[in-house]
Amino acid sequence: MYGLIGKMIATSGNREKLISILLEGTNDMPGCLNYIIAEDRDNENALWITEVWDKKESHAASLSLPAVQSAISSGKPLIEGFGERFETTPIGGQGLSQ
Amino acid sequence: MYGLIGKMIATSGNREKLISILLEGTNDMPGCLNYIIAEDRDNENALWITEVWDKKESHAASLSLPAVQSAISSGKPLIEGFGERFETTPIGGQGLSQ
Repeated sequence: MYGLIGKMIATSGNREKLISILLEGTNDMPGCLNYIIAEDRDNENALWITEVWDKKESHAASLSLPAVQSAISSGKPLIEGFGERFETTPIGGQGLSQ
Repeated sequence: MYGLIGKMIATSGNREKLISILLEGTNDMPGCLNYIIAEDRDNENALWITEVWDKKESHAASLSLPAVQSAISSGKPLIEGFGERFETTPIGGQGLSQ
């Protein structure tokens, strides 16, 4: 499996809108086993995306999906920047399903 | 919802064993909606735990469960320390279920 943990910073006041766009564009991605978007509790403009994929190639391929492309294009103006980013190899747990 | 993203460092060579102990002790926790353990790709002794709970109190209560207590006690000698830790408010996505 392949995993990503990443922080994104929305432009001021636009976190909720950005999260909606991201959730809408990412709900049907082949090979995606887990995808959760969460607000950061310390920074009102920051959000976290935690992802688990069957393999790294599925994540790369997802970036070309029409719904994801559309989310990227709608979300881009609402993104101020990116924070921490960690790559992982998920081993197991609860919530891994397609 | 309440979320945690945390990094744990195993004593040298013991990451796999520590992950097994953690997975075994955490597979039936009331209020836990998502719990995934992943190896860090850059540090051979590091692992990440990403968690989603229905509420913060459920996470706190889980620490008293017999299986979790047993995992903490078996795992403790294999833990070198802790790295980054982020608290979140999960909003949605794929993989949130009890």
